[in-house]
Amino acid sequence: MASKTNPGNYFEDFTLGQEIIHATPRTVTDGDVALYIALFGSRFAFNSSSEFAASLGMPRAPLDDILAFHFVFGKTVPDISLNAIANLGYASGKFGAPVYPGDTITTTSTVIGLRENRDRHSGIVYVRSVGINQNRETVLDYVRWVMVRKNDPEAPEPDPLIPQLPDAVDVGDLEVPYVLQLHNYNTDLAGSPYLWEDYEVGEKIDHVDGITIEEAEHQMATRLYQNTARVHFDALMHKHSRFGRRLIYGGHLISLARALSFNGLANAFRVAAINGGRHVAPTFAGDTVYAWSEVLDKMEMPGRRDLGALRLRTVATRDAPATNFPFRDDAGKYDRTVVLDFDYTVLMPKRP
Amino acid sequence: MASKTNPGNYFEDFTLGQEIIHATPRTVTDGDVALYIALFGSRFAFNSSSEFAASLGMPRAPLDDILAFHFVFGKTVPDISLNAIANLGYASGKFGAPVYPGDTITTTSTVIGLRENRDRHSGIVYVRSVGINQNRETVLDYVRWVMVRKNDPEAPEPDPLIPQLPDAVDVGDLEVPYVLQLHNYNTDLAGSPYLWEDYEVGEKIDHVDGITIEEAEHQMATRLYQNTARVHFDALMHKHSRFGRRLIYGGHLISLARALSFNGLANAFRVAAINGGRHVAPTFAGDTVYAWSEVLDKMEMPGRRDLGALRLRTVATRDAPATNFPFRDDAGKYDRTVVLDFDYTVLMPKRP
Amino acid sequence: MASKTNPGNYFEDFTLGQEIIHATPRTVTDGDVALYIALFGSRFAFNSSSEFAASLGMPRAPLDDILAFHFVFGKTVPDISLNAIANLGYASGKFGAPVYPGDTITTTSTVIGLRENRDRHSGIVYVRSVGINQNRETVLDYVRWVMVRKNDPEAPEPDPLIPQLPDAVDVGDLEVPYVLQLHNYNTDLAGSPYLWEDYEVGEKIDHVDGITIEEAEHQMATRLYQNTARVHFDALMHKHSRFGRRLIYGGHLISLARALSFNGLANAFRVAAINGGRHVAPTFAGDTVYAWSEVLDKMEMPGRRDLGALRLRTVATRDAPATNFPFRDDAGKYDRTVVLDFDYTVLMPKRP
Repeated sequence: MASKTNPGNYFEDFTLGQEIIHATPRTVTDGDVALYIALFGSRFAFNSSSEFAASLGMPRAPLDDILAFHFVFGKTVPDISLNAIANLGYASGKFGAPVYPGDTITTTSTVIGLRENRDRHSGIVYVRSVGINQNRETVLDYVRWVMVRKNDPEAPEPDPLIPQLPDAVDVGDLEVPYVLQLHNYNTDLAGSPYLWEDYEVGEKIDHVDGITIEEAEHQMATRLYQNTARVHFDALMHKHSRFGRRLIYGGHLISLARALSFNGLANAFRVAAINGGRHVAPTFAGDTVYAWSEVLDKMEMPGRRDLGALRLRTVATRDAPATNFPFRDDAGKYDRTVVLDFDYTVLMPKRP
Repeated sequence: MASKTNPGNYFEDFTLGQEIIHATPRTVTDGDVALYIALFGSRFAFNSSSEFAASLGMPRAPLDDILAFHFVFGKTVPDISLNAIANLGYASGKFGAPVYPGDTITTTSTVIGLRENRDRHSGIVYVRSVGINQNRETVLDYVRWVMVRKNDPEAPEPDPLIPQLPDAVDVGDLEVPYVLQLHNYNTDLAGSPYLWEDYEVGEKIDHVDGITIEEAEHQMATRLYQNTARVHFDALMHKHSRFGRRLIYGGHLISLARALSFNGLANAFRVAAINGGRHVAPTFAGDTVYAWSEVLDKMEMPGRRDLGALRLRTVATRDAPATNFPFRDDAGKYDRTVVLDFDYTVLMPKRP
Repeated sequence: MASKTNPGNYFEDFTLGQEIIHATPRTVTDGDVALYIALFGSRFAFNSSSEFAASLGMPRAPLDDILAFHFVFGKTVPDISLNAIANLGYASGKFGAPVYPGDTITTTSTVIGLRENRDRHSGIVYVRSVGINQNRETVLDYVRWVMVRKNDPEAPEPDPLIPQLPDAVDVGDLEVPYVLQLHNYNTDLAGSPYLWEDYEVGEKIDHVDGITIEEAEHQMATRLYQNTARVHFDALMHKHSRFGRRLIYGGHLISLARALSFNGLANAFRVAAINGGRHVAPTFAGDTVYAWSEVLDKMEMPGRRDLGALRLRTVATRDAPATNFPFRDDAGKYDRTVVLDFDYTVLMPKRP
């Protein structure tokens, strides 16, 4: 009689080219949207108002792109990262079809890289995960890599393959919803007069506001995405662990940083790509999170006069305001207050 | 390169007659309604059951009126009260078109009064805020006044103007949804046999139950309304402040008081007006809130035999049951347990 | 002038055969579903994905059956258990029509048994409660019994009647939604390859994962169901009580146990019956809950080749993993870690 519970995959269970259909398809709803606003306080009018979205040609307000990310990501956890030691990075994330309440999201992953660690107790798994909707349109396609424990250190080592990953998603690969047209874009309702032309490469913005995280909040968020990693929920198990308490899902910080970035980037209405990301340090309930952003690049969008793209780095800090833009020292070491270093590309209206 | 973040308006930034279109229109949904029930436990059948609402002629269950208030109010915060020292009062609040899930709410405000304080460091701003739905119907029209910091104490003093505000909204100005008809009103389902005729002016009701507030709860509620006042969210910033911790949004107390008032006022199915309100003392997570009400007045509704109006004062207390109706002493000083003094008008069915 | 608040019913207020129409009909929505996922992390594909449900013939994803239970139960609290000392047991619970977002649930109860306690200060009340939807279809029909205080110990003792209750709901009485057909059931999406044939009577499954409960979480869940028992919400009142703090609604543990049981019982897609249940010990915020299940019985479903039934006991523990299946000792005494002993029947697909 086999054990009926899911032990997760260990490093030696992954094979190059392996395809995994992840469980629990998820119909997203207005309820998810309301909870997301309640948990993060997001204010982008494009996601908040169906009237505003309709004025731009959309059928209704799409989900916040980062919320869509969490749904796609959450499904991969029971198969990819249940035995993970660390979530190492993201790359090549392209948002496709906007996600609307009523859509059903399913995720499949392909193993695109493997490399055992020298100590033979773990290895790095690279997966490309694709989230689709009920019409089989891709809503998000991204790569992440994780360090996963081996169950049996003696299990044979796979041929190492580290995939080539781009530094950033190419502007030609960014998807703009084809119904979108911005000539009615209302900056009063959007909350800021600053458009694509007003931002400069190298410009840094302190997003000013801070949010203190409660246990109930990160637990509810993480469960909403059906992310099952025990480390976020089981305080007893963690009493005698390294940190002595529950760790907050790294994606929670991405959502907080994005919501905080409204104050300074209110017209960055759509996340088009995730170029990279690093969870620099763990966070815990009680931490107060701040964020700042730097404009890394400024790109015209091929074939579009009404909008442009900005490549941004948004950095989240804990328990220290971001007034002085804490980041890395000359040796490349992150400031001790930094918890997230997130590199992504947004769309922003241009002046008419 | 201008700072891209919103510094909020200071006292000297306001001018008489100034109109402000507030950002982030909000499509309200079933998700907001569910969260509101989860946060406050409201039980008015009119807002809880679409079948019940339909039996009274409504297309479906409208949002709790106080929830509609929070959406209209929340939008004003980034423009009106980001630099506020205190939220001083409300007046002349008239609820109009019921708000239904799917409606999109936008708020605009007009500055109707200004008075600089003697110390020249702050002043009082009176605004009339109007929330409308996607059909441009008014859902709520109310006045509030706030004490707002000056950025530059030397900025010139405006001509003082304090608007004339009524003590209470006139019964002739109360709006009854025109489709509403109460001959099928079911008191079993509504939860109480007591109708308009059963209440007497001067009658006091202890609402008995108590609710202890958690940080996660008031933060989620306040973010749901996209109210951005830092004071509710940033524990670090407040560590060395006067209170040493996050303050709860005053409107949270109005919602708690209204939800608690069900036990004694179950048939007060609609809030028609906010006559006045005062946040007497701040509240914090961990506080347990109780409430009691007094019937201030009892009004026939012109042209309606099926319902009447009650003007109520509902008082919320912290960390002390409301058994003895704590309020003010002879000198007019509030009892130290009182946190909210809310004066409003409700509609209630009459006996057939 | 009568007191307008609801004092609840005392033991002497109940009479045999008495019918009670409970207040506050409730239209359930996508918002409730999202909150339920956020609070418990449930992952059954049948309730999570409308596409998955549609592939099985359902019009859309129905609510989690235990969520439907909470709505039906919650309404009974103000009339049945406001003056309860203990919620003693459940029996004969049969789920009928699936509940969908948009449905309106109303509950009525009938008193089917009464027995005063020897000390004359309380008695046991047996009620059969029936939840119906807007089409007057039964969604749940169950019996519970509670020990209720007497208001006046001298009130006359009723003739004792203890109803005959079955040990378990008969398999012939289980309802299978008539549109349901399982030939397209996808075990990849459902999250487990184990079907009805793979489970054996006597088999025990440790559900492995643990969840730590926060005050905000159980309060929000309990209010969502409009369950008004003060004991869950009023910390001040409980400061000097036996436990010194708020008690968690027993049903919260049923939901946690059911959600945890996914890991090992992912294909138990429908709860068809509640045979019995006992809240063995109270739980509090901060407790970490684990669960394990035993297959008590395995039944063919009359007239159905595509699915069978499993009678399960799911036991929840606090602050101790369920690795060794803690239950009762030889004398019948529960292990000190056990908080819930829940006996219910689920439907599970058979191999094609």
